[in-house]
Amino acid sequence: MNHINKIEHIGIAVKDIDTANDVYQKLLGVPPYKKEAVESEAVITSFFKVGDSKIELLASTHEEGPIAKFIAKKGEGIHHIAFDVDNIVQELDRLENEGFQLINTTPKKGADHKLVAFVHPKTTHGVLVELCQNIVS
Amino acid sequence: MNHINKIEHIGIAVKDIDTANDVYQKLLGVPPYKKEAVESEAVITSFFKVGDSKIELLASTHEEGPIAKFIAKKGEGIHHIAFDVDNIVQELDRLENEGFQLINTTPKKGADHKLVAFVHPKTTHGVLVELCQNIVS
Repeated sequence: MNHINKIEHIGIAVKDIDTANDVYQKLLGVPPYKKEAVESEAVITSFFKVGDSKIELLASTHEEGPIAKFIAKKGEGIHHIAFDVDNIVQELDRLENEGFQLINTTPKKGADHKLVAFVHPKTTHGVLVELCQNIVS
Repeated sequence: MNHINKIEHIGIAVKDIDTANDVYQKLLGVPPYKKEAVESEAVITSFFKVGDSKIELLASTHEEGPIAKFIAKKGEGIHHIAFDVDNIVQELDRLENEGFQLINTTPKKGADHKLVAFVHPKTTHGVLVELCQNIVS
C-alpha cells in the first residue's frame, strides 16, 4: 500500500502573483493553467503543471495573512511541499501515531478541489508538509 | 517542446542524515533507496522515491560547506527544487536569455548520475532552482 502517492505540488510564497506568474511562465515554459482565491487562507494562488506535479504560487490578499507573515519573516521562497494521498484521514492518523505533530487534525477544503491538512515543520526537519486528497464530486 | 520535464527532486537540508532518514522513512512510508557522498559539495545525500520524483536529504560533511552555512543561517528545511531537462546546456542558455541569473553557466557533475546547474534565487522569487540532466553512460 502506498502511503504517499507523489509530490502533488510545491507551494511558493510570492509578493505579487502577476509578477511571479510572468517569471514562472518563463522558467517553466508553460503558462499557469488556473488562478484561484482561497478566502479562508487569505491567498490568491496560481498553478503550473510540471510533469505529474504542480507548482503553486501563493500571494497574500491581506497583510495579516499567513503568506504575508511568512514573507515578512523569511522572504519570498518555497513555503511547503504537498503530497498526494488516497485517504487523508487515514494518513493523518498514521502520521500522528508515528510521532508527527499535526497542524490540522481534521482535513479542510483547500485550493484545486482538495481536502488538505498540514504537518508541523518542527517534526519534519523544518519542512511544512501538506497532505492532500482529491475531492470526488 | 518541453523545456522542463518534471520535478526531479526536492532537496532538504538536514543536520544529521541518519536521524532525518528515519523521520522521512516514517513520513513517506518507504526507505531511502540510495545514500551518496558528493565530495565537491561537502555533502552526504540520501534519496527517497515519491511517485515520479524524489526527495533528496542533504547533510554537510564539513562545517564550512554550503549546506552547513544554509542551516546556520536559515535552519533545516527545503533547500532547492530540481527540474529534469533533456538538454541542460540548451536550457541554461534559454534561461539566461530570459533574464535569469545563473549560478553555474556550465553544468557540473552532481549526485545520482546527473549533470546539474543552479539558477540564483534572486531571479526566481527566492527559490534555488537546479536543472539536471541524466548522464547517459
